[in-house]
Order: sequence, then structure tokens, then C-alpha cells
Amino acid sequence: MENFPPLLNDRILRAARGQDVDKVPIWVMRQAGRYLPEFRKVREKHDFFTICQTPELACEITLQPISRFDLDAAIIFSDILVVPQALGMEVLMKPGTGPVFPKPLIDSCDLDALKTAKAALPDLNYVFEAITLTRKRLEGKVPLIGFTGAPWTLMSYMIEGGGSKTLSKAKKWLYTCPEASMKLLQLLTDVNVDYLVGQVKAGAQMLQVFESHAEHLDEDLFNKFSLPFLTQICSRVKKTLRDDDIEPVPMTVFAKGGHYALKSLANSGYDVVGLDWTIDPGVAREVCEESGVTLQGNLDPCALYAPKEELEAIVKKMGAKFGHKNKWIANLGHGIYPDMDPESMTTLVNAVHKL
Amino acid sequence: MENFPPLLNDRILRAARGQDVDKVPIWVMRQAGRYLPEFRKVREKHDFFTICQTPELACEITLQPISRFDLDAAIIFSDILVVPQALGMEVLMKPGTGPVFPKPLIDSCDLDALKTAKAALPDLNYVFEAITLTRKRLEGKVPLIGFTGAPWTLMSYMIEGGGSKTLSKAKKWLYTCPEASMKLLQLLTDVNVDYLVGQVKAGAQMLQVFESHAEHLDEDLFNKFSLPFLTQICSRVKKTLRDDDIEPVPMTVFAKGGHYALKSLANSGYDVVGLDWTIDPGVAREVCEESGVTLQGNLDPCALYAPKEELEAIVKKMGAKFGHKNKWIANLGHGIYPDMDPESMTTLVNAVHKL
Repeated sequence: MENFPPLLNDRILRAARGQDVDKVPIWVMRQAGRYLPEFRKVREKHDFFTICQTPELACEITLQPISRFDLDAAIIFSDILVVPQALGMEVLMKPGTGPVFPKPLIDSCDLDALKTAKAALPDLNYVFEAITLTRKRLEGKVPLIGFTGAPWTLMSYMIEGGGSKTLSKAKKWLYTCPEASMKLLQLLTDVNVDYLVGQVKAGAQMLQVFESHAEHLDEDLFNKFSLPFLTQICSRVKKTLRDDDIEPVPMTVFAKGGHYALKSLANSGYDVVGLDWTIDPGVAREVCEESGVTLQGNLDPCALYAPKEELEAIVKKMGAKFGHKNKWIANLGHGIYPDMDPESMTTLVNAVHKL
Repeated sequence: MENFPPLLNDRILRAARGQDVDKVPIWVMRQAGRYLPEFRKVREKHDFFTICQTPELACEITLQPISRFDLDAAIIFSDILVVPQALGMEVLMKPGTGPVFPKPLIDSCDLDALKTAKAALPDLNYVFEAITLTRKRLEGKVPLIGFTGAPWTLMSYMIEGGGSKTLSKAKKWLYTCPEASMKLLQLLTDVNVDYLVGQVKAGAQMLQVFESHAEHLDEDLFNKFSLPFLTQICSRVKKTLRDDDIEPVPMTVFAKGGHYALKSLANSGYDVVGLDWTIDPGVAREVCEESGVTLQGNLDPCALYAPKEELEAIVKKMGAKFGHKNKWIANLGHGIYPDMDPESMTTLVNAVHKL
């Protein structure tokens, strides 16, 4: 591993490890994104995935919110769909529509066309390069977070071929071909393990796994098709790093809409559990108390529309619900929306640090 | 009120009132819908809203699933968006896209263009006529359910102008113009009260209020912008009926994604609380025990993709989770999907009745 500049702000890592913090750390999902005019300027000139694949551009965008706001972490600019791409699938980002797979998976035979985990990994080198470059350019200001999409979330994109309100095609696989589903989920787990280990070796100081489609499952489906793979990813990443004499970094799992699985997630081996805005932080503290896990979240992204004073009051209320400063990483309960005024981010970050 | 044929199957009404039942009653959201070839045949010849507005056609479609399956209730074929239409907004149903408002509400000034509740009601006469006709044609076979969309759900459609993943435009109203939001929600509440009372007078034997967009709110927003109006609708409908010497019919509230509000909903005055599939029925029984409310739901709609034996096993499991036959109306946790095999409905209905 490279020799990186010393870390000047370890607040988020301390929070993740359950150590005392001077202030509540904050970062925001999609903090490097379309709500920033400097992002839109880069995006005008380059295709979405070209930015992901060009370390210099991904680094530039990752650093944009860090220059603007007093955030406690950077997150590498990338997308969860780079993994299906590395497995051999074509993914386009269509403005106004979102991601589109021209040839989604139709049936289990299509699995044969996917690359193996081992063959897919080299295709993700550009992410590792972007992480290393960004880690240097950050000059130790804040830690750099790496991430990936959880197997079920990636599988559902690969089958739906884009956004879907019901994920009924992907869920049909779970009910009608559970064996093929398990095979695909295991492949995605294997890639994810190598991918996350590679991100840490490249310089990532924290990792987040996004199970963005947990809301479409119920507890039985989640326990069969999501949780075992999430757990496997966490334990294998940590073990692999330890075997290579690398101290494991804190790992976060965020299962959006997975209110029914909160307790299971708190006991799944991850250091941090992300909450969406529908979960009451006080209830989450109670449910997760025993596990000792740190919580992340969970402001309604639309609260950033509120006038300054009201947003400050909402943040205070959230602080009161989380109850104490430790074991809490402040964030939104979902990514920030493209039409948000960057000024609201300043209000949010300052209000959290004032708690 | 008309003299209708005597009711031969009151299982669902008994369940709603907490009385003993011989079998668990079942109906399915969107049971009169696109998964039925006989529905698609009518739909080929007529526009969606033309069907809603033509009592003979709405009646025909309402009865289609009753002829095919051993269901315990019919639900009048209509749409929650007939209410915004009655208030003066144009709504089109675009195949493959869903509902579209060519001129959605942009700001609070647009509220002035909406009709009053009193002026809107006569525009809904076609629903009342459809209900009366259907009630006759049902010949007492099963009760007829009427319904409406809850104020927040209707408001969000009226502002978003169609489907939206985030409802960020509508939620922006809640954060930036709460007064105008309350005014709109109150208008929708007033229309809904008259509309539901009118449905009962026309022959509806049970009512359901759909808060389909609860998942986008958090507890604070829900308690301010949804719950008070839901509660108001229930109490005013029942009071108005009593004042007119009409025995109130059982009322169901279904707040999709509203797991965080389950206890509040159980105590909101409704007789039945609908559950989506992310809520564990055992947990719901515990949370709602004290309130004495009946529960409705909550099979994952995609479970109907499962092979016959597996679907039967899933229904058995659901039955075990609900624990006992009383105070339970079986249903899906969401409307049935258009690509479902009608055979699966037969399996579902029979499996529930065998419990």
C-alpha cells in the first residue's frame, strides 16, 4: 500500500468504531452530484460512466463537495453499476431516465455469458486508481469512503434493465428460479469481496454496501436472498484484509426500506448500519443497543428544502432522537436530490456540528 | 337508499367487526384488472377513465373476478384520481406510463382554480351510479367495497403530475408552504367525506382509504400532513352517516410503506388497518392488539409467481404469522400485477379458505 498523507480528521472513523467524538461527523449520500454547479459543468463535457472510468475526473468530482463544505468524509465518485459492467453487461446512463441495460438478463441461461469474479476484477482497476489518486489529493483532510452495491440490488438492476417501481421481473426470479438466483447472488458476492478488498488496498478508509432495493423484499425473502450475502461480504472482506496483514476498515451496510431487518443488520458484522428517514432514530437506538453498532442517517432528503431556521430545528430534533453524540454518523436517509440549493448543505453540516 | 338483494356472504364484514368467521375472508387489491383477459378485452375498446365514468362498464369489470374466483368481496372499479378530476384537473391514463396530469399544481396560486368540495361532488355521480348498479347485479353474493385516495396521496399526484420515485416536488410543498399544503389537504378531506358518504348511500358496504404514498413521509410529516386528515375522514364519514340514520359501514385504512405509523393507524378510528408485505403480521398483531382493530393483508404480490405448491406453503406461513382466523382479512400487500396468471388467484383464494 502507498504511503498516504496523515489523516487530519478521523471523526467518522472514531464514530464507526464506537469511540468518543468531539462533534457528530457528517457526510451526505451523493454529496458529489448534480446539485453542485461545478459537477454539472464537468458532466456537460463528459458522459457519466466516462467520468467514473477516468481517475482524474472521478477524483476532481469527489473533491468538489470537500472544498465547499465542512464534511467529515469524501466518497469516491463512482456508481454501483460498474460491477455489472465489469461482469460484461452494457449499462448506459440516460439523462432524465437513469441507468439502462440494453440487454438485461432474461433467464438463467444468460448467467453463462457473465464473466467470473476473477475475470471481472481487472475491469475495475480504474476505480482503484481513482481511489489512490483521490486519497493523495485529499492530503489527509478527511477519510475516503469506498462502496459497492449489494448483490440483491445489483441482481435486480441486471434483470429489470433499469428503474422499476415493483422489481417484479427480478422478484419473479426469486420465486421461480431460486437456484439460478442464488448462483447470481453468489457471483456478485464474490466480485464484491474482491472489489472492496481492492478498494481498501487502493486507499479506501471506510466501505459502504448499498442494499438500495431492500424495500421490495419481505423478511423471508431478505433472510434468504439478501442477508446471507451481506454477511458473507463483511466477514470475507475483513478476513481477507487480516490475512494480508491489513487492518480492516469500518464497514457500513445501508438497506433502504429494510425497517423489518434492522435487528438482523445490527448483528450482521457491519460496524455501521444506515437508516432511511422512515425509521425513528430512537427506536433504532433501542433495537440496536445490544449489538453495539453505530447508526448512520437519517434526515429526509426533502428537509433540505426547508428554510434555514426550520432546517436547523429539524436537525436539532434529529439529534435529540439519536440521543447522544457517540455511535452516530449524520447523513440523509437517501442521496441528496439534484434540485437542492448547495446553501442548504452548508446549513445542514453546520447544524450537525453544532449539536 | 335502495332495497338491495339480501347479503349471502358477510364473512368480510364479520371479520372487520371482530366477529367470529368460519373461514378467513379474502379479496385482492386490483382484483378487477389487467391480469384478466376479459378485462383487457373491455380495455381494448374503451379508455380507462371512460370505463370509470360508464356505470355499465365499471359494473361489468367489477363483477369479472367475482364470476371467476371464490372471493369474499367485490370492489367497485374506479380510480383514486377521479377525485382530482372532479376538482377540475385533467388526468389522462397513458398506457405503459400510468396517470399523467398535463397541468399539475405548480404553486399555491393554482389552488384557487380548484373547485370547492360541494361543487366537485356532482361530478362523481357516475361512481355512485356504478355502485348502485353493481350492488344490484351482485345479487347479494358478496359485499361491495367503495374507496378513495387519502388526501396526501392525492395531493402528491396533483403536484407531481404523475408517477415519481421521490415525490420531491410534493414534499417540497410540505416543507416550504405548509399552509397551502394544509389548505389543499383539507379540501381533499372535505371532498372525500362527501364522496365516501355518497358511496355508502349508493350501496357500498365497506370503504377503504388508500394512503399509497405513506412510504415517502417520515413520522413527523405523517403526523402533521396525513394522520389528522385520515382520522378526520373516518370520524366525519361515520358521524354523517349516523346523523342520517344510516349504520356506518366498516372502514379500512391502508398506508403503504407506513410501517412507522402502524400503532397510530390502529388507533385512528378505522375498523381495519391494511398491511404491506414488509410488515411482519406477528409484529402487527402485537402492536395492534390493544386497539382491537382488524388487520388486512399482506402477501407479497410477487408470491403469486411461485409454483402452486409453494404458493400454498407461503399462504400457510402467512396464516401462521397472523396466528388466528379472526380479525384478519386476507389480501396482497399491494395490487396484483398485470402479468399474473389468473390460475394463481384461484390457488391463493382456495389456500386462504383452507386455513
